[in-house]
Amino acid sequence: MVDLAIVGSVALDSVRTPFGEVKDALGGAATYSSYAASFFCKPGIVAVVGEDFPKKYLDTLKKRGIDISGVKIGGKTFKWEGLYEYDMNEAKTLRTELGSFASFQPVLPESYKEAEYVFLANIDPELQLAVLEQVKNPKLVAMDTMNFWIENKKEELLKVLKKVDILLINDAEARELFKTPNLVKAANSAIKLGPKAVIIKKGEHGALLFMDGKHFSAPGYPLESLVDPTGAGDSFAGALMGYIAKTRDPSEKNIRRAIIYGSVVASFDAEGFSLARMTSINMGDIEKRYSEFHGICEF
Amino acid sequence: MVDLAIVGSVALDSVRTPFGEVKDALGGAATYSSYAASFFCKPGIVAVVGEDFPKKYLDTLKKRGIDISGVKIGGKTFKWEGLYEYDMNEAKTLRTELGSFASFQPVLPESYKEAEYVFLANIDPELQLAVLEQVKNPKLVAMDTMNFWIENKKEELLKVLKKVDILLINDAEARELFKTPNLVKAANSAIKLGPKAVIIKKGEHGALLFMDGKHFSAPGYPLESLVDPTGAGDSFAGALMGYIAKTRDPSEKNIRRAIIYGSVVASFDAEGFSLARMTSINMGDIEKRYSEFHGICEF
Repeated sequence: MVDLAIVGSVALDSVRTPFGEVKDALGGAATYSSYAASFFCKPGIVAVVGEDFPKKYLDTLKKRGIDISGVKIGGKTFKWEGLYEYDMNEAKTLRTELGSFASFQPVLPESYKEAEYVFLANIDPELQLAVLEQVKNPKLVAMDTMNFWIENKKEELLKVLKKVDILLINDAEARELFKTPNLVKAANSAIKLGPKAVIIKKGEHGALLFMDGKHFSAPGYPLESLVDPTGAGDSFAGALMGYIAKTRDPSEKNIRRAIIYGSVVASFDAEGFSLARMTSINMGDIEKRYSEFHGICEF
Repeated sequence: MVDLAIVGSVALDSVRTPFGEVKDALGGAATYSSYAASFFCKPGIVAVVGEDFPKKYLDTLKKRGIDISGVKIGGKTFKWEGLYEYDMNEAKTLRTELGSFASFQPVLPESYKEAEYVFLANIDPELQLAVLEQVKNPKLVAMDTMNFWIENKKEELLKVLKKVDILLINDAEARELFKTPNLVKAANSAIKLGPKAVIIKKGEHGALLFMDGKHFSAPGYPLESLVDPTGAGDSFAGALMGYIAKTRDPSEKNIRRAIIYGSVVASFDAEGFSLARMTSINMGDIEKRYSEFHGICEF
């Protein structure tokens, strides 16, 4: 049985930043989020990759204890090509090849259906719904999304939103989805639609939590060695959900801690291309940076 | 004697935001910063206004206990006209009339020269230098600046920077001045030039402090009723310096507290046009919001 079922993309990323580039590197929302979650619990991913997908990449996930029995193989792998320029805050997408994801129908292995925690990573909201229908009795479900779905499948997206406990969304998307520049108003609008908690990701500026009428603001980690932010949002979400699954405590207080763990793992992710930095750290590194966050916040 | 000498503009602002507009309202960096500082200490301002400047505006400052003996009267008042659109994060300047500020030569009254704390608000760096030469033995000097001076008087600006203890700057300006998108690197570059502390203002995202090799991140206050952000950065700086002057403690630990007081007063400023909201609050309101900041940060 897996602790955390994750649906999302497993992809081949070609990324260029001012600090270097990689071609056809291991990427995708399910990859980053499951790897980040694996520091805390046993995740399983639902995704599809092509016949062209390097076996060594699947081995990287498998060796890490991530259940990949929900990864279908067929057709061509999803490919993304992106570029970060001077300011590094936003990727310019140069090319997207959906490949097998264009016709993907997620089917959950039996061992995933009892998962108590579910993360619907950024993917077509119809696929998010299909996954949600297959899990039996989840304790906590979180979803992520992106501007493409807000603009093209808003109705389906709102359908998913009504069924989840936590909405994870970045600041620009929150403003777009709820048609207000004010993030407090956006979060309040989201909560009226169903989720208990809204977590707004703000990149280098950290993250905000709105839950139980309370507000928490997590700082960004002061990274001097930012190399490639690809996957930081997914790593954040994965570590956050992994920590909640490990502690089995979805209280507001514990979600604050989960957000800091998410921020820590995301900060490591951004220090390297693909999984390079994340595969070089251990729980001790994570705990060390976690305690640095106390020093950054206290007054 | 004044506790805190401030040089900066006293102006007539015409501002339009999605929530209303004002014409020829009391504004300017010295106005906002001195009013914010007056909750904590006795500030005195050095500035110039025109013959056209409404006497009631000077009375507002005077009644508040702000020393205005350094305000020269002559010619025409500095006027600024600005517009905030949907996102409210940046003002569009529609018109600027420098008026008497074009030829202003700051002269400090005797009662200001012994001031232990000095705030050089955003103004021509040559005027900031002229003020600095007139104060006798300040304990702590802070400066603010803006993109216009970075682009047009960079050499003079760096001269001032070498002589101050605290650089206050917003994030976009820090990136521009130190030619890096990375705020940690920008802050480190600034500190190499002289100041002990760098405080980066990030608007709704809060503020960062870099000092003594330590890092502090203050959250933004979750404002649902943002009306007009004009003067928020100046109010932040004024309250911050006012609190340091009151406590006479320039330690890193105390500057963290000063930043939170600055954030609190700035958040009130943004809830109204001109000084409307700030003139309606008292120290109790400030302390209440200060303690809310603890709840926003703790994990």
